[in-house]
Amino acid sequence: MKKKISPSMMCSGVLEIGTYLSAFEKNGIEYLHIDVMDGEFVPNLMLGTDYVKSLRKASDIPLDVHLMIYNPENKIDWFDFQPGEYVAVHAESTAHVQRALQKINATGAKAMLAINPATPISALDYVIDDIQAVLVMTVNPGFAGQKLIPQTLQKITDVRRYLDDKGRYDVEIEVDGNVSFENARKMSAAGGDIFVAGTSSFFNKNIDLDLGIQKLREAIELR
Amino acid sequence: MKKKISPSMMCSGVLEIGTYLSAFEKNGIEYLHIDVMDGEFVPNLMLGTDYVKSLRKASDIPLDVHLMIYNPENKIDWFDFQPGEYVAVHAESTAHVQRALQKINATGAKAMLAINPATPISALDYVIDDIQAVLVMTVNPGFAGQKLIPQTLQKITDVRRYLDDKGRYDVEIEVDGNVSFENARKMSAAGGDIFVAGTSSFFNKNIDLDLGIQKLREAIELR
Amino acid sequence: MKKKISPSMMCSGVLEIGTYLSAFEKNGIEYLHIDVMDGEFVPNLMLGTDYVKSLRKASDIPLDVHLMIYNPENKIDWFDFQPGEYVAVHAESTAHVQRALQKINATGAKAMLAINPATPISALDYVIDDIQAVLVMTVNPGFAGQKLIPQTLQKITDVRRYLDDKGRYDVEIEVDGNVSFENARKMSAAGGDIFVAGTSSFFNKNIDLDLGIQKLREAIELR
Amino acid sequence: MKKKISPSMMCSGVLEIGTYLSAFEKNGIEYLHIDVMDGEFVPNLMLGTDYVKSLRKASDIPLDVHLMIYNPENKIDWFDFQPGEYVAVHAESTAHVQRALQKINATGAKAMLAINPATPISALDYVIDDIQAVLVMTVNPGFAGQKLIPQTLQKITDVRRYLDDKGRYDVEIEVDGNVSFENARKMSAAGGDIFVAGTSSFFNKNIDLDLGIQKLREAIELR
Amino acid sequence: MKKKISPSMMCSGVLEIGTYLSAFEKNGIEYLHIDVMDGEFVPNLMLGTDYVKSLRKASDIPLDVHLMIYNPENKIDWFDFQPGEYVAVHAESTAHVQRALQKINATGAKAMLAINPATPISALDYVIDDIQAVLVMTVNPGFAGQKLIPQTLQKITDVRRYLDDKGRYDVEIEVDGNVSFENARKMSAAGGDIFVAGTSSFFNKNIDLDLGIQKLREAIELR
Amino acid sequence: MKKKISPSMMCSGVLEIGTYLSAFEKNGIEYLHIDVMDGEFVPNLMLGTDYVKSLRKASDIPLDVHLMIYNPENKIDWFDFQPGEYVAVHAESTAHVQRALQKINATGAKAMLAINPATPISALDYVIDDIQAVLVMTVNPGFAGQKLIPQTLQKITDVRRYLDDKGRYDVEIEVDGNVSFENARKMSAAGGDIFVAGTSSFFNKNIDLDLGIQKLREAIELR
Repeated sequence: MKKKISPSMMCSGVLEIGTYLSAFEKNGIEYLHIDVMDGEFVPNLMLGTDYVKSLRKASDIPLDVHLMIYNPENKIDWFDFQPGEYVAVHAESTAHVQRALQKINATGAKAMLAINPATPISALDYVIDDIQAVLVMTVNPGFAGQKLIPQTLQKITDVRRYLDDKGRYDVEIEVDGNVSFENARKMSAAGGDIFVAGTSSFFNKNIDLDLGIQKLREAIELR
Repeated sequence: MKKKISPSMMCSGVLEIGTYLSAFEKNGIEYLHIDVMDGEFVPNLMLGTDYVKSLRKASDIPLDVHLMIYNPENKIDWFDFQPGEYVAVHAESTAHVQRALQKINATGAKAMLAINPATPISALDYVIDDIQAVLVMTVNPGFAGQKLIPQTLQKITDVRRYLDDKGRYDVEIEVDGNVSFENARKMSAAGGDIFVAGTSSFFNKNIDLDLGIQKLREAIELR
Repeated sequence: MKKKISPSMMCSGVLEIGTYLSAFEKNGIEYLHIDVMDGEFVPNLMLGTDYVKSLRKASDIPLDVHLMIYNPENKIDWFDFQPGEYVAVHAESTAHVQRALQKINATGAKAMLAINPATPISALDYVIDDIQAVLVMTVNPGFAGQKLIPQTLQKITDVRRYLDDKGRYDVEIEVDGNVSFENARKMSAAGGDIFVAGTSSFFNKNIDLDLGIQKLREAIELR
Repeated sequence: MKKKISPSMMCSGVLEIGTYLSAFEKNGIEYLHIDVMDGEFVPNLMLGTDYVKSLRKASDIPLDVHLMIYNPENKIDWFDFQPGEYVAVHAESTAHVQRALQKINATGAKAMLAINPATPISALDYVIDDIQAVLVMTVNPGFAGQKLIPQTLQKITDVRRYLDDKGRYDVEIEVDGNVSFENARKMSAAGGDIFVAGTSSFFNKNIDLDLGIQKLREAIELR
Repeated sequence: MKKKISPSMMCSGVLEIGTYLSAFEKNGIEYLHIDVMDGEFVPNLMLGTDYVKSLRKASDIPLDVHLMIYNPENKIDWFDFQPGEYVAVHAESTAHVQRALQKINATGAKAMLAINPATPISALDYVIDDIQAVLVMTVNPGFAGQKLIPQTLQKITDVRRYLDDKGRYDVEIEVDGNVSFENARKMSAAGGDIFVAGTSSFFNKNIDLDLGIQKLREAIELR
Repeated sequence: MKKKISPSMMCSGVLEIGTYLSAFEKNGIEYLHIDVMDGEFVPNLMLGTDYVKSLRKASDIPLDVHLMIYNPENKIDWFDFQPGEYVAVHAESTAHVQRALQKINATGAKAMLAINPATPISALDYVIDDIQAVLVMTVNPGFAGQKLIPQTLQKITDVRRYLDDKGRYDVEIEVDGNVSFENARKMSAAGGDIFVAGTSSFFNKNIDLDLGIQKLREAIELR
């Protein structure tokens, strides 16, 4: 599958969003990653429904919305999700994971299952038919700036093998957490397909944005 | 006290923030209102810590942050509040209201107590020394576009009288919810000091922004 | 106001409902009281949406539904409430009491505010315009067979005076908990209008149902 | 094992219960399925303690109680469960699944573990000695009228094989959700033993009840 | 009423309890204050059921147990409370305050209502018949070492007047939080009856225990 | 690995702690087990932060703290954990198990993962690099005096084999729950390394403490 980049929009200042979107469109960025946090499932509060609706209008790049909230099955219809968008819910955030995925699919959007670093892969056993991607967290969700948890690299490999064994070559793996240029290369080699880009790569004042995107692209394409 | 305007920034699209901030600065807007919602205390998710930190850098207008979240006392230090800013917590959102106000005051920011439409004024009885403002909700928190709850106009009057009876002429009253040009006039006459401006007034495509601000200013100054 | 009886349907065995409904219709019973309990707000589980919908079809007597559940504002639309029905929500069950009452009124049903034995009357201060009745709990909600809490008799008097002082002579007072023939007389004298009848009065094998209803009617009419 | 039918009593109107019970007794129905919902674990409120106690007296058919509630271990003693009855708790509803099963067994009733569509079979690994049945949800719990989730058919097969591999041929599999005549046949072939009958089969005005039961019996017996 | 001292046992090291108890008995200390914290109602975890049961056996001084926990009505029977003991529950910790007080009274122990610094006195309106004391928090509960919240001194006076107005001269006022020798004098003058002694008074290495108790006694007796 | 004993300090009366500590030091006891319970994750309240801090000063034996609380990741810094101490968090108590373990490791203490009787071993799959021990609960947590759940003996064996298969011979297994002299021998044979000693062994008036320790030592060393 084609390797893709999904920049984490929470890393953009409120005044720089236009500049970022232009650069992302010019550079063929595939998704816009939006972190929604409720302050309960994760110890941080971030973005929300109006941001999603406004960003959707501001760019043609499809959204990739990461719901770090409890009981997402009850909140999915707040966002007016659209075909072509990705929506990720956490396996640990509800007793009714399949219902949440079902509700995402019912909107026409693509369902992604996010799994925390400690979560076993058996979480996928009976929802593999309901998803188009797995989001392997490589840090614990909630904050930018954390360090890669080493065993999650192995987990990417394990998830890829698990999916292939089930014949689901089409299910993508997204990786989120400390996706630096260096880590991205390893994550891609391990089987990652979509890379959430944040402060570890091109959301960084010390690097030219176009060059940074280019550099991340090279890393994930293993060039 | 001088009547003040606090535009609700959630009403701005992600690409229009710069334009709004310029207009607000030019027109002497006194505060920038930020609605933080956790999807649990209110049935909506909105803005958060990074937005607050970024908007703070983007403008010299002081922030007016409205926390619609459970147990705010545990989350206040996530925002890095600053002197001159207003921070509102809801009387209904925690068993430890005084601790929440105390924590706000400890940051140097000004504490505001928000009270829902149904909440009795006795909620103020033993925190009046800890606050610089009361936020009288004139709709139930969570959404733009709701209609004014009629008895909340009387409540503004009641709160003003209550504060004056205690000699706290300096404590301001903020009103939030369906602050239309027409309602703003009534709210101001009833005793409102700071007016949260949203889609009911100048966040509206059918009105010129400068004129809208001017019109709201006239309404609240009872001219 | 006319004194009314609202039998607590949870006191009927599953096979006796038809018999009870016939007797209630014959005797001019004014409401059918339905106790909905979630096992969290109160330590018991009772009845629910399908029961409400089915009982509505089974009788022409209007329903009087008592929601002993957390966050009723999010669950009101599960019941398909109808004009002429009463729906009670607890002041202690949500941070958004006015929203819950507003949602009931929006269905066309009549809103009632239930207050637990310990709850102060100031809970009514800013919702009095949203309600058609106050439910004064004379025991703590959750179980049949409890003893009247003495001070709640005084509370009925206090609520009646409070309502009259506000000119709301039309707002009814419902009483629920240990409404025995003897207590009913005192509760009526204190100002009760609607009486929830349970095991303390005519849901009792030792008494003829028609006579029991007649006896309760005499008690509440102070004859 | 003998194939069994457990009609979902929430599908009966309040006035028709007697008629249903007669038909069920005449047709040798094995269990009466009772859905208890708390409005928190599932987004619906249904039945409860008094219903269970009353239905127990109204029929000799043993009860099969499905607790869709949080922390069932704290609520089991509210129901006065009896030997011969089945009580199901959800693997996703508590951190203390074994304690809940232990408490059921201590009443003399038979313990059943319910697993949501997304829940992996490893949930059974260390409670297999504590149960007499597994309840494989074939829809997400909470509502009648949902469509079968396709992969749950495979799950029935997987659970049967898992149980047989452990030598637990005696542990029954109950299936719940869209048990139509057509689906019942597939579910039975996959390994189902007890079939929760609802609106998809004979709780349906378009079908004669006796014939409907007969037809379901034929389907599950693969005749 | 006689002024009394209730030392906060959480201030004693695990090895010093015997020494403290001897000194307390010798000096006629009236109660032993035990702080039970659940880490949810307050942000700290402290003591619990076995500690209460063991301390009860270790001394003849009656216990004064302060439950800083959610839903105390469900947990009161864990402690095996005894006649002569005081048990305090927080008005903010449950929707069913009267039930909690009722359960305490049913054990034979004396019920106390604790109110946080922000809580209005109307919390007492309909439970005054169920209590033998009011616990006026003079800091927010959860930690030793906090500073007196100034307006709580006035609150002591207000509560005393409220009780006297109702003819309840016998209801005691306990004060808890920064009860230093200096503050204790003011708290006593304001109307306090029982003083929780902690690190601000004699649980302090810089002071001789007997002298410290003596000094606190003099302060509260306004000598 | 050397077999070790960790006496459960909640079994000591408040006045006997000094005596116990002396005996434990004399007999080479390896850890002091502290049960922290929040009344929510488990239906009991026990010990807490000050107890931990005080016991730490009272003895040179390192602490072994068992957190039976929800969301331990948010509470770990309340205890001031030290290098050489063990801290156990429950796999069932948080959605963020790895974050909790990470926070323990960051204090310098050793992280232990506790798993309830029903919890599958797959809970270990991606945290094995973060732990120094697994706590296999052999009863459901919350109370002393319960009976061993038979299948947990097999679970000890399974966990040991799992760890060995991963080459983690160094990860210890602690067992907690009904560790009688007789059961301890079986638990040790199954693979247990650290044994929580409570009322089933030497916290028992009918046995001499030194002899009891000696007897438990012999049992776990399979002598």
